[in-house]
Amino acid sequence: MFRLEELVARLGGELVGDPATVVRRVATLDQAGEGDLAFLANPKYQSRLSACRASAVIVAPAARSLSDRPLIVTKDPYAYFARVAQLFNPPEAFAPGVHAMASVACPVPASVSVGAGASIEADVTLGEGVVVGPGCRVGRGASIGARTRLHANVSIYSGCVLGADCIVHSGAVIGSDGFGFARERDGSWIKIPQVGRVVIGDDVEIGANTTIDRGALDDTVIGNGVKLDNQIQIGHNVRVGDYTAIAGCVGVAGSTTIGARCMIGGQAGIIGHLNIADDVVVSAGTLVTKSIAKPGVYTANLPVQGHADWVKNFAHLRHLDALVDRIRALEQRLEEHKPE
Amino acid sequence: MFRLEELVARLGGELVGDPATVVRRVATLDQAGEGDLAFLANPKYQSRLSACRASAVIVAPAARSLSDRPLIVTKDPYAYFARVAQLFNPPEAFAPGVHAMASVACPVPASVSVGAGASIEADVTLGEGVVVGPGCRVGRGASIGARTRLHANVSIYSGCVLGADCIVHSGAVIGSDGFGFARERDGSWIKIPQVGRVVIGDDVEIGANTTIDRGALDDTVIGNGVKLDNQIQIGHNVRVGDYTAIAGCVGVAGSTTIGARCMIGGQAGIIGHLNIADDVVVSAGTLVTKSIAKPGVYTANLPVQGHADWVKNFAHLRHLDALVDRIRALEQRLEEHKPE
Amino acid sequence: MFRLEELVARLGGELVGDPATVVRRVATLDQAGEGDLAFLANPKYQSRLSACRASAVIVAPAARSLSDRPLIVTKDPYAYFARVAQLFNPPEAFAPGVHAMASVACPVPASVSVGAGASIEADVTLGEGVVVGPGCRVGRGASIGARTRLHANVSIYSGCVLGADCIVHSGAVIGSDGFGFARERDGSWIKIPQVGRVVIGDDVEIGANTTIDRGALDDTVIGNGVKLDNQIQIGHNVRVGDYTAIAGCVGVAGSTTIGARCMIGGQAGIIGHLNIADDVVVSAGTLVTKSIAKPGVYTANLPVQGHADWVKNFAHLRHLDALVDRIRALEQRLEEHKPE
Repeated sequence: MFRLEELVARLGGELVGDPATVVRRVATLDQAGEGDLAFLANPKYQSRLSACRASAVIVAPAARSLSDRPLIVTKDPYAYFARVAQLFNPPEAFAPGVHAMASVACPVPASVSVGAGASIEADVTLGEGVVVGPGCRVGRGASIGARTRLHANVSIYSGCVLGADCIVHSGAVIGSDGFGFARERDGSWIKIPQVGRVVIGDDVEIGANTTIDRGALDDTVIGNGVKLDNQIQIGHNVRVGDYTAIAGCVGVAGSTTIGARCMIGGQAGIIGHLNIADDVVVSAGTLVTKSIAKPGVYTANLPVQGHADWVKNFAHLRHLDALVDRIRALEQRLEEHKPE
Repeated sequence: MFRLEELVARLGGELVGDPATVVRRVATLDQAGEGDLAFLANPKYQSRLSACRASAVIVAPAARSLSDRPLIVTKDPYAYFARVAQLFNPPEAFAPGVHAMASVACPVPASVSVGAGASIEADVTLGEGVVVGPGCRVGRGASIGARTRLHANVSIYSGCVLGADCIVHSGAVIGSDGFGFARERDGSWIKIPQVGRVVIGDDVEIGANTTIDRGALDDTVIGNGVKLDNQIQIGHNVRVGDYTAIAGCVGVAGSTTIGARCMIGGQAGIIGHLNIADDVVVSAGTLVTKSIAKPGVYTANLPVQGHADWVKNFAHLRHLDALVDRIRALEQRLEEHKPE
Repeated sequence: MFRLEELVARLGGELVGDPATVVRRVATLDQAGEGDLAFLANPKYQSRLSACRASAVIVAPAARSLSDRPLIVTKDPYAYFARVAQLFNPPEAFAPGVHAMASVACPVPASVSVGAGASIEADVTLGEGVVVGPGCRVGRGASIGARTRLHANVSIYSGCVLGADCIVHSGAVIGSDGFGFARERDGSWIKIPQVGRVVIGDDVEIGANTTIDRGALDDTVIGNGVKLDNQIQIGHNVRVGDYTAIAGCVGVAGSTTIGARCMIGGQAGIIGHLNIADDVVVSAGTLVTKSIAKPGVYTANLPVQGHADWVKNFAHLRHLDALVDRIRALEQRLEEHKPE
């Protein structure tokens, strides 16, 4: 519970209305009631402001005259909302100490929390305030930066490096072998040992059941501030630039480099050995098969249709080249017969 | 081992032939032999009935005259087969009790089974007959309904609610943080605390390594009788209606609502903030990018071709608009020159 | 550290240059330095050979005259490199023995290593030298062949069979229930017990968080030497032939048979009940919706475009059939008016 004047003192912004107004939680414009702090981030919802029953609202300067409720006016209401929400909802606190049913073979700072069933091998380095959840495994020689939290059942392979202030969700696997094999003449495969590491920067979030393979010879590298959603697959020797955000179910094949501040939509795929520039946005479901040199939005997905329409239309895709030939033939015949 | 008369007494259906016929297992028409109970669910396999060597067959009324073997005649042979199969193959029994190597901080009914390496935190509510497999984590304040089974290495985050009679397969993660961030001007991201829960109804099955994110402010909700296959990703604040079945590798992005009794094919995707009506069927591999208001089958996927044909045909997709212009030009020229 | 003559004695190949040349690791052509053994596998990188600073290079016969460095000449430099890399980087050794915090209910050969938090149930058969990583669960009656390694947090369900010399990465789930339900008239689902097993051959590698469902009545079968990348989903009763390699994020639906020596690209999908011949290559992102009877490369994916171009071009896909009608109409009109 905060008074608006406390929030503004901590987070900035201009206060309009009673500074002693008390707010107890954050809420959406539509659902906010007495004691709630709402926010108007998208001008297209402006008309909902008048009906809003929140005790106060975070708004952009352009909206300051649109409500007589107490307001916090700030350039970026959504970012402000995020900061307030963090104040109201600090991350779960874990009691420091090593659970009696954990197996730990490295020195553990007193501020570190290790859950039941966790297994931390020799030569691991743990920063201050690290949380290793129940059932996690941290392999030999790995390093985990200060305040980084591993939720339950995370697997970190030997030698991998995580920066500070990271969050790794349950079931994530970091440092599994890259998919590297040489093919024999009979079609069988010889495994190429994967001896690189995964090196992850600071302030990275890694979603549930996301997998990041270790490099073959060099490392797989995830930059600072990168946000990875659930069930993403990152192949060996991929490099992801700072602040890039990748939505769920995306696959990035080996040795591809993705620039900084990119946004990759859900279920997109990027094949191997490509270069994606900084500030590229890839739409959901798009398979990227060529390098992208310029910032911008890139798309390749299909319009959904009722099944019967789809059958009728998409059958022609098999014959598109023949169709183009027919158009060309028409053009030639018309050319030949055109009046002088 | 059952006599046909016992099955009919329990499950209904009309018995044709010797009521004392003994069957020991269920099998497919092709593979069934002495002691097996087969079923004919799809009329197109009717011709296989004569060669079938099963001791008895479950058939629809229309097929009753097609075999002189003992028969169970019922309107829906496949559903009947499922029920018989359940009789023959009851779920694995787990000895009640808490394994010595489990860590449990909540009251546990005597009928509950908790496996080795499991970690159950404070304020968790466990119904009668719950099975928590080895290596599972159940976070603080979560609730698990009667007879629900968590296979090994399932992660349930704090505060999540599972109904009764659910089955959750290994590696599933329920209640991980939704992918919610506010973007700063420099491209960096501020995490928005995800304070909603995941609330799951009764009789829900959740596949291996499927992930369901907790809501941002409100809850993520999975209805009664929903069946989720493996490796599905459900984003925050998604709502899935009763009896909807989703096949493997599907992604559903945040805040989308899916109606009741829908069937979503494998590797399909549904982007965020959409409404999908009841009784919608989405074909495999289809990315849904708009809301769907009417029941029916919806599709968007591509015909597979030999690579050379594909190259020839699909290159034209980049120039489809120009192609349409050429057709329009042809139409105009023909119009201009058409005989009066 | 090896002398070239030692390598050639073990692995074959023809040595050109000083047999006593010492190499300490393998490296790429570009990054190799003093003490490194590089390789030239792809003739298109031939020009880099002259600038390479490796102590020695593995080359094909055609390249033997292109460098005055010490060389190992062999028909298949990449396979040779893989073998050398294995010599330099033997798999991590695990101390045999059962960790005090593991729960084991079956006989364990002295050569087997079982990690902390692992749970191995009754009637399990473990071959010599098996490694069961921390947090793994091996269900009742399962069987694991000699020298097979389960990394941390792998879940093997009851009754499943793994061959010898397999590697299973963290988070993989083997033997979860197939997605099998009969639908009732009200839209609800009756579970069909999945009583088949998963049977996996020798020398198989299974990637992180990959899932393989057990068969419904018969088994799901993975052949010898199969390589599965991360986050692959294999449905019930699928059969995968020897030496087939499947890249990350692929889904294979139930009852499909894939031949031997196939290569399936990342994020591809194969729907259920299909037959894919031996030696078929499926491109990344391709959804296979029909059986494939002949070897070859098969593709169905879309060219990526800038978003505005995509909007312009792909809108026409909804009207492709009407477009074909317009072309047909043009052809007819031209036919009618053609000069005699």
